[in-house]
Amino acid sequence: MPSFTPIIETLPSTVPFVGPEALERRTGASIAARIGANESVFGPSPRAIAAMQAAASESWMYGDPENHDLKRAIARSLGVHPGNIACGGGIDGLLGLVVRLFISPGDVVATSLGAYPTFNFHVAAAGGRLVTTPYVNDREDPESLLRLARLEGAKLLYFANPDNPMGTVWPAADVERLIAAVPDDCMLLLDEAYIEFAPDGTAPRFDTARKNLLRFRTFSKAHGMAGIRVGYVIGEASMIAAFDKIRNHFGISRISQAGAIAAVEDQDWVAHVRGQVVKARARIGEIAQGHGLQPLQSATNFVTVDCGRDGAFARSIVDGLLTHGVFIRMPGVAPLNRCIRISCGTDREMDHLSRAMQQVFSNSR
Amino acid sequence: MPSFTPIIETLPSTVPFVGPEALERRTGASIAARIGANESVFGPSPRAIAAMQAAASESWMYGDPENHDLKRAIARSLGVHPGNIACGGGIDGLLGLVVRLFISPGDVVATSLGAYPTFNFHVAAAGGRLVTTPYVNDREDPESLLRLARLEGAKLLYFANPDNPMGTVWPAADVERLIAAVPDDCMLLLDEAYIEFAPDGTAPRFDTARKNLLRFRTFSKAHGMAGIRVGYVIGEASMIAAFDKIRNHFGISRISQAGAIAAVEDQDWVAHVRGQVVKARARIGEIAQGHGLQPLQSATNFVTVDCGRDGAFARSIVDGLLTHGVFIRMPGVAPLNRCIRISCGTDREMDHLSRAMQQVFSNSR
Repeated sequence: MPSFTPIIETLPSTVPFVGPEALERRTGASIAARIGANESVFGPSPRAIAAMQAAASESWMYGDPENHDLKRAIARSLGVHPGNIACGGGIDGLLGLVVRLFISPGDVVATSLGAYPTFNFHVAAAGGRLVTTPYVNDREDPESLLRLARLEGAKLLYFANPDNPMGTVWPAADVERLIAAVPDDCMLLLDEAYIEFAPDGTAPRFDTARKNLLRFRTFSKAHGMAGIRVGYVIGEASMIAAFDKIRNHFGISRISQAGAIAAVEDQDWVAHVRGQVVKARARIGEIAQGHGLQPLQSATNFVTVDCGRDGAFARSIVDGLLTHGVFIRMPGVAPLNRCIRISCGTDREMDHLSRAMQQVFSNSR
Repeated sequence: MPSFTPIIETLPSTVPFVGPEALERRTGASIAARIGANESVFGPSPRAIAAMQAAASESWMYGDPENHDLKRAIARSLGVHPGNIACGGGIDGLLGLVVRLFISPGDVVATSLGAYPTFNFHVAAAGGRLVTTPYVNDREDPESLLRLARLEGAKLLYFANPDNPMGTVWPAADVERLIAAVPDDCMLLLDEAYIEFAPDGTAPRFDTARKNLLRFRTFSKAHGMAGIRVGYVIGEASMIAAFDKIRNHFGISRISQAGAIAAVEDQDWVAHVRGQVVKARARIGEIAQGHGLQPLQSATNFVTVDCGRDGAFARSIVDGLLTHGVFIRMPGVAPLNRCIRISCGTDREMDHLSRAMQQVFSNSR
């Protein structure tokens, strides 16, 4: 039979993230509150929905492989040049590409222990050697990451701000210090998937002359369009152009491009969602505290809740909530896995969460 | 600055396929007849359009990463097991994955000279060594490909049936002989993007026990949904499972999954499109012959037309038609590039083509 490459041979054949649909199929129960994947229950902009519905009948055409109008719309919204933007299949897809651009087998990649698993998945596929440093006070730690990257000669350094799965954040000044200190030959990957939910003063200014910084953003979170699979990366023009070397040029759906353009142009919707998220974060905090759990301060559209014990205890809450129709997730590694992670929702989801928490905690005591 | 991998360093930063939108931006003229990318002007099934419109407001949710319902619908339509199906971002996306599964730098990949360039693009990105054999009588030649694969110890052998860009075809018996003769350690990639347009008796039976065969199909052509980016691959279960090792699990848009499921379930629409294509193929043939050009027999939704001279002459027709608002393409290498390639359209596009051809040929004589 045909043989896989040596790297592929070592990889497991799994779907690493169990989706809520799979949970429903597995348990036979339907999910009433889908608040586990940091999707935006508040939905896409009505203008984006209308644009996608109008584009549906045009689906016989490939989407523009240059993503020209989409890149222009994004660039305008950020005040950068379209040549500083590349689009891809969500941040996930773009992280896969960036790993393939820079990582040969054995090259070192630095990240935090417990940070974004999909990035690690792509590093493994390229045969990269992943090195990690722990979170400090539930935050990814710039100083530790820098030391690690220097010590190991990392080619890529992953840093999310705000962070997932903890929801914590560093102010722009700290991020700018990190950016300035990263070795010239190390590419800093700044994942800003949740940036729209962070306090003012979180995002550094755009410096598109800097060759060792790529910033990742998405339509999946604040724009409420996880299902359309559009993310983008902002960087220096020659680094951005490199994505053209390997990307699937026709890869972004035509409907998705139309929807994303409409979404960029509806910043009022983002502001509306942000308001809803602030409200829901407070509600999640109250619900958690009502059961003696400690919500972490969140700069995202989810709240990570410290359950005060070990991973098994947190897992029992996640599993318990699922039996009451509430889908949430939890961090994968200690000590982060003492926590559960709950996405913001409307009053409907929050009420459901509240009731399910009551049931889980009354059963377990 | 960060350095690319040695393979990436050698690759050009280009968008290899100029889309019609880019042509419009470049020329400033709008395209009236978009019949160059073998899209289906006849559009998607009305049921698929309705399904996509209904799914638009659900775009806040990620699509099912397991593509469970979509794989089941496809499997049912083919009479195979869902475990023999993997879905991806069009055949393009799946070809990219299969190359990464099997090709280490220096590994050999066999194809025909002038066959699908996107496949070659992916091989280059993996550092594969591409070896080619010419078309024979405007068909990819199984015997030559087999000899080449054996001689060079190819790990992958690409064969499209029906073929693009020539539109030619081999009957199932010949394809089955090829399948049986491919060395056990060589993976045969059978690209069947256009299979729905081929004569009955073109597609071999499904043999999902065979480990060295992967068959690729798509919603881009007969289903009229190039813009949704969904293709699938049919093969032996352990080979299919390997795609999970590296694919972007959440990569298929939620709307696309909904649309593709509805499309699979509307085979009447495919039959309707097939009828339209038969009519349009005849019309393209008549138009070509009216100008002394020779249409090749087509088993696809396009007609390749032998213009009887060299690549420069064929190029002058492609460029001339564009100035009259007609977008077509042509093969990239000699001797195939004596031809132009025209996609089927409705009467509107065909009338437009007819008028534009008259203008191009009256100008050039």
